[in-house]
Amino acid sequence: MTNIYVDAMGGDFAPQATVEGAVMAVKAYQIPVTLVGRETDINKELAKYDVPRDDVRVIHADSVIGFDEEPVYAVRHKNDSSLVVALDAMKGDDNAVLVSAGSTGALLTGALLKLGRIKGIKRPALAAPLPRMDGGRALLIDCGANADCKPLYLSQFAAMGSIYSEQILGVKNPKVALLNIGTEAEKGSMAVKEAYELLSKQSGISFIGNIESKEVLRSEADVIVTDGFTGNILLKSIEGTSSVLMKTIKDTLMASAKGKLAGALIKSDLSGLKKQFSSDEIGGSPFLGVKGGVIKAHGSSSAYAFKNAIGQAAAYGKADITLRVKAALAN
Amino acid sequence: MTNIYVDAMGGDFAPQATVEGAVMAVKAYQIPVTLVGRETDINKELAKYDVPRDDVRVIHADSVIGFDEEPVYAVRHKNDSSLVVALDAMKGDDNAVLVSAGSTGALLTGALLKLGRIKGIKRPALAAPLPRMDGGRALLIDCGANADCKPLYLSQFAAMGSIYSEQILGVKNPKVALLNIGTEAEKGSMAVKEAYELLSKQSGISFIGNIESKEVLRSEADVIVTDGFTGNILLKSIEGTSSVLMKTIKDTLMASAKGKLAGALIKSDLSGLKKQFSSDEIGGSPFLGVKGGVIKAHGSSSAYAFKNAIGQAAAYGKADITLRVKAALAN
Repeated sequence: MTNIYVDAMGGDFAPQATVEGAVMAVKAYQIPVTLVGRETDINKELAKYDVPRDDVRVIHADSVIGFDEEPVYAVRHKNDSSLVVALDAMKGDDNAVLVSAGSTGALLTGALLKLGRIKGIKRPALAAPLPRMDGGRALLIDCGANADCKPLYLSQFAAMGSIYSEQILGVKNPKVALLNIGTEAEKGSMAVKEAYELLSKQSGISFIGNIESKEVLRSEADVIVTDGFTGNILLKSIEGTSSVLMKTIKDTLMASAKGKLAGALIKSDLSGLKKQFSSDEIGGSPFLGVKGGVIKAHGSSSAYAFKNAIGQAAAYGKADITLRVKAALAN
Repeated sequence: MTNIYVDAMGGDFAPQATVEGAVMAVKAYQIPVTLVGRETDINKELAKYDVPRDDVRVIHADSVIGFDEEPVYAVRHKNDSSLVVALDAMKGDDNAVLVSAGSTGALLTGALLKLGRIKGIKRPALAAPLPRMDGGRALLIDCGANADCKPLYLSQFAAMGSIYSEQILGVKNPKVALLNIGTEAEKGSMAVKEAYELLSKQSGISFIGNIESKEVLRSEADVIVTDGFTGNILLKSIEGTSSVLMKTIKDTLMASAKGKLAGALIKSDLSGLKKQFSSDEIGGSPFLGVKGGVIKAHGSSSAYAFKNAIGQAAAYGKADITLRVKAALAN
């Protein structure tokens, strides 16, 4: 059985959304969940729901690591924080999975320091599932954990991303593409050209070549491999451009009576669209390559998003991702 | 007087759009323009318009470099192509400016080989003006010319971008930001951290610190400095995300009778929005750091876009950008 831990104090709407999400998950998936954080706060929230207490364990942690705290310092010094207490509880249990919507930097640093890398993995990487036009997911790996990457790291990202795409996102024989500034093999920086060479020869993955950033959302690529600097630029650019465009359209609609009428007519359609691109639906970002599972949920996660992330964590444990990554490295 | 050359055969709608755009520009700005390409084709187009032939010179060139040709090979071997003939005509005239909507690779390679770098400039860079929410332009430099960049190159991009922003885009004291994966000074790859150091101490520019990709369109940064790999990923991601989103909205509207009605109501508003983000309005991308001016127009440029690009070229020559870049390096 997978032991699922939730950082009950992480995220913009904690502990309300974390506790409610855990309750929803316990009911939906029939799995026990351990909430880590201030016991009185958690119990106060839990009292609102009718849920068997055997299924919801609580581990007390006195403090919380804030979004603005320096990650290494915070993880080293805040031993009583919900994040560090949860990671300490997981130690040695490769099948445990943590869900947190707290500071990304602290989560990655904490996971590296407390859980450690899987033997042979050079750099664990954060993988973000992007919403593709066809309803599928393109897993972008690395999307921010490693600003400087050697070609070998990218080849490991491809292997780990493929495992996750297949096991958790349900893609059979996932197609792996290398993010580049052109589709031809000879395009790109020196490091990217070397990565292309490695990926072309790599067994255990289905490499389909380069992909340009403008094709990411409308391609058939299931796993998109890049360094953490470029991946983060791409991820946040997609977020920023969508948000700017949606706001501009909204402002345009609100500026005239005709526009307001049109807005009323298509409100439900637009909210369907919004749902398609919502991080609540898309799922959390796994930090792949550490011992045990770590799922980063969006800071603004709702209870519903936490429920989904916990479901993802259960699938993660059930599929034995850590063991599969180990096995892939042994090949 | 600036000598303006137009690659009459470059772009999806050449020579119709190039010739018509040149005629529009000659009338709008009262400047002479030289069209380079197949003389019979150009004259056939010119015959459609009433324009003083003294203002429109034609230089004959037999062939065209296609989008799919290998740039270095094409520039070296196609001496009779419109691009190479135009560059040869410009040689030695630092005040000449070329507008081309042909292959970007061939244009950059040709400019480097035929015109050469300004003394002291390590790497000329392609600068794309991005449409900011507030109606201003954020000049992204480099957006694709140099996949591998040293921190010193980025510092030169900042200097050249500032000159262009001030002189051509009319921004007083342009604000320079460094594209990064966080706003704090210690964020990013090793090369970006070094670039941050250089930019912080650089005289002649107004450095405002790091900028994240999600803020590019809604920031106040006038010049956004990055390497050509990251810049290209960002540029094409903005293009791709907008295009995917606009298409999804259009499909959503077309899927129901209500949606079609709403679409009819807001058609004019949406086309205003489209115009704001259209490359026809935003202008061409200057290739900064070569001797003489080179403006890359979008491949799908209309006559109107060419007219604007030629206006940009006239301003480029008038402002003596090449001389100003030389002077900035001497400081």
